Amino acid sequence: MNYHFLHDFLYPNSIAFYGANNKGTGIASFQVINLILSKYRGKVFPIHLNLDSVMGYKAYRSISELPEVPDLVIIYLPPKIVPEIFRECGEKGVKRIIIVSGGFREMIGDRKNIYTEQISQIAEKYGIRFIGPNCLGFYNNWIYPEDDTVALNTSIWEKLKRGKFSIASQSGTLSSHIWFDPEYIDMGLSRSLSIGNEANIDIVDCLEYLKEDDKTEVIGLYIEEIKRGKRFFELATEISPNKPIIAIYLGGTEAAERAVRSHTGSIAGNSKIYSAVFKKAGIIKTELVEEFLDIAMVLSKGVLPKGRRVGVITNSGGPGAMIANHAEKVGLKIPEFSESLQVKLKSMTSHTASTRNPLDSTFDMNLINYYINLPKAVMKSGEVDLIFMYGVFGYHDVLGKYLNNERIAHSIDMTQEFLKIKGNLEDILIRPTLKLSKRLSIPIIYINPENYSSPWSISIKECGGTLFQFWDRPVRVMAKICEYAAYKQKNSIGN
Amino acid sequence: MNYHFLHDFLYPNSIAFYGANNKGTGIASFQVINLILSKYRGKVFPIHLNLDSVMGYKAYRSISELPEVPDLVIIYLPPKIVPEIFRECGEKGVKRIIIVSGGFREMIGDRKNIYTEQISQIAEKYGIRFIGPNCLGFYNNWIYPEDDTVALNTSIWEKLKRGKFSIASQSGTLSSHIWFDPEYIDMGLSRSLSIGNEANIDIVDCLEYLKEDDKTEVIGLYIEEIKRGKRFFELATEISPNKPIIAIYLGGTEAAERAVRSHTGSIAGNSKIYSAVFKKAGIIKTELVEEFLDIAMVLSKGVLPKGRRVGVITNSGGPGAMIANHAEKVGLKIPEFSESLQVKLKSMTSHTASTRNPLDSTFDMNLINYYINLPKAVMKSGEVDLIFMYGVFGYHDVLGKYLNNERIAHSIDMTQEFLKIKGNLEDILIRPTLKLSKRLSIPIIYINPENYSSPWSISIKECGGTLFQFWDRPVRVMAKICEYAAYKQKNSIGN
Repeated sequence: MNYHFLHDFLYPNSIAFYGANNKGTGIASFQVINLILSKYRGKVFPIHLNLDSVMGYKAYRSISELPEVPDLVIIYLPPKIVPEIFRECGEKGVKRIIIVSGGFREMIGDRKNIYTEQISQIAEKYGIRFIGPNCLGFYNNWIYPEDDTVALNTSIWEKLKRGKFSIASQSGTLSSHIWFDPEYIDMGLSRSLSIGNEANIDIVDCLEYLKEDDKTEVIGLYIEEIKRGKRFFELATEISPNKPIIAIYLGGTEAAERAVRSHTGSIAGNSKIYSAVFKKAGIIKTELVEEFLDIAMVLSKGVLPKGRRVGVITNSGGPGAMIANHAEKVGLKIPEFSESLQVKLKSMTSHTASTRNPLDSTFDMNLINYYINLPKAVMKSGEVDLIFMYGVFGYHDVLGKYLNNERIAHSIDMTQEFLKIKGNLEDILIRPTLKLSKRLSIPIIYINPENYSSPWSISIKECGGTLFQFWDRPVRVMAKICEYAAYKQKNSIGN
Repeated sequence: MNYHFLHDFLYPNSIAFYGANNKGTGIASFQVINLILSKYRGKVFPIHLNLDSVMGYKAYRSISELPEVPDLVIIYLPPKIVPEIFRECGEKGVKRIIIVSGGFREMIGDRKNIYTEQISQIAEKYGIRFIGPNCLGFYNNWIYPEDDTVALNTSIWEKLKRGKFSIASQSGTLSSHIWFDPEYIDMGLSRSLSIGNEANIDIVDCLEYLKEDDKTEVIGLYIEEIKRGKRFFELATEISPNKPIIAIYLGGTEAAERAVRSHTGSIAGNSKIYSAVFKKAGIIKTELVEEFLDIAMVLSKGVLPKGRRVGVITNSGGPGAMIANHAEKVGLKIPEFSESLQVKLKSMTSHTASTRNPLDSTFDMNLINYYINLPKAVMKSGEVDLIFMYGVFGYHDVLGKYLNNERIAHSIDMTQEFLKIKGNLEDILIRPTLKLSKRLSIPIIYINPENYSSPWSISIKECGGTLFQFWDRPVRVMAKICEYAAYKQKNSIGN
């Protein structure tokens, strides 16, 4: 792995903070709190004019008093004093700074912001690289690779699962708030970089770093403006066949332009041009945050389809019809199953079943048939590239509810059938199908309308299954993933 | 309220069941179980050739042996014996039947199904009305109006919150499975009717009943085919200015046609014609199940916008920009705030805030300002018809996490500010704004990326607030609701 200067931003052994206090009401205070909660092991040096300690850390009056040169400085102070702070940092020998505070060029009518110019000059003089202004810092889930209970984290109050999805974002929300419900997100995070106004370090720097980063396999971007368009396009084109890039890009409406200008001070480019460029570079584009997360989640599972032929397996006609309808509208194919496959499926289902695709098994309590035999027959037929499977309910969880009722518990003997396989349901119903799915590179999308955190839904996710609660979002998501997979096939080295 | 024959289906004092046993593995068994779990107080008469009791209820060999004529009969038996059962029911004097079993006309190539014709003739002879075949029965959440812990329920294993949203559906999933995660759905259910193949009772009958039903204020439909198109259109046109109708209609793709034909045996009509008819009748059309539920939820809150001008209040630029971008793309307006409103908003926000719309307050820990003063100023300006409000986090919940950490708890004094208002946060931060929203008829959409069941999210919902976890879906939803509101304004009596 080649050295990249952003690496040292993410692995500091010491951090100095401007702007944190013990009231705990400003962003800097929250950042120190998040650092404590994520168990950062490096040194923390609060710098404060009046306080002797901040959050239990000894405070210093100025950076010159620090016993060492900190690896990183984080500043949350009004813009007008930031140039002076930069100068002091430069004198001390600091090389890396994050400016969290806003109020620089995003202020209306002030694009040539004087403070931005001043800090840029000072940075150049002292060889300082800086992130921001107007950002939230970062999350590095691999700071101590051997210990996954620890993160370097200034922006989220939760310890997130570790994974290989990394984000670079011109919005702090898209790098942090979207993780405020970690249970809801079935993937791990690697790095998350909030880069704000990009006065010095930009999204191209991030892409260069993430390209070589062995802790990154899927990349998410939130973009309001691309400063170095040519280099961005070159890089994205190099990266995307190996590491999929999902990008939210806004533009094309008057209101978005206004919002974007107030937000990061960018002037958004023409949306159509961006769309064309993104497509050519193999970037998966979306304007929806849920879709952004959904796509990243599915890609993180690591099984890509080889085409766009969908098999639908359902035990209920309505969802089957809705999936088929929606899938064709977004460019997926629902081929009618061949005669021979239908004969096979008919032999495995009841007389009320429909086998044409969607395969509607109707009501079927033979779970091994439903979870194993039917998807196996469909996958092995060679007639589909991906599968939607509706109705993977937690029957055994429901059974538990039944057995809480005395009248029902005394009457029914359905328990026996379940007791035979209970305790090992994942191995019996899920793992063999997922193994085959991986081997044949045919993704399976499970859909269970129960709560995403219900016991059986958690089991499916823990086995590595791809799970959605409803069927609309995964259809759109898989259409985009199929498009990406086709791009990758065409553009991978060796093809 | 005029009498409608469907009323007696929903309020039976006795139900006879064919097809339930004690193995608990068929649909009929689940239906009896659901009846028990929902605490139905009427009489239950299982009919079974061999069993003496089913789920603790005394069983009878045939319907002729029953000590009384049951108000309702539910049948889950193979099609070929259903005509004979119908005849026996007719002889007994039964007037209402639900056929749960499938295998009638939805079997391919068998539209003129012989069994369907036979039971239709027998029904006519004996004056029987029947629902189905191929359905899941119903949910009546108002069977004992004075006791909301009880429901008449054959289709869901959960007791749902009571409300005034009613469903009539040609798919059992859309009438039942979509409620398998009740916590996730912030509205109550009134009636839910699964009507299957409509051999006798159809969606027009349901609309006639729901039109006059004082327990129904919002109507949801899932439609694969409309048998009496003219009457459907007339009725929908009469109903929709008073009770909004949301309809999922599938059609327009080859795969959907195939799925629909296998499902209910319908031949879906031309999608474009349906779209035009729905629009003229004021029906809110969707093809997405999440959108169906979202629209119903927002409409159940009862505050309709008077126009399509959106005010966006956010404490984070990214979501503000994304909301603005998406809103304009789906036909909503994001007007720039007037000079005078901006002056007012500037006086209430920090120097880093943007006040043009989106109003981005940036980081602001003055919660009363954020939750009360800013929306009040925007609402009272007369410049917007609805509001999106991002970033309504559960700060006090997060504070709880902080205080669990000894170092943080010992250091910070931010607790004081919160302790002053804690315990009464809903009254201080939410209720006054919702009251004003209702008075001015300006809906507010709160967005909190934390878990939908996090304490503060639950508080917002309990106050009657409209809450989403992310911002994409509510934008599309409000575009459709604005369209409906405009229709209603134009078509209400008196206009």
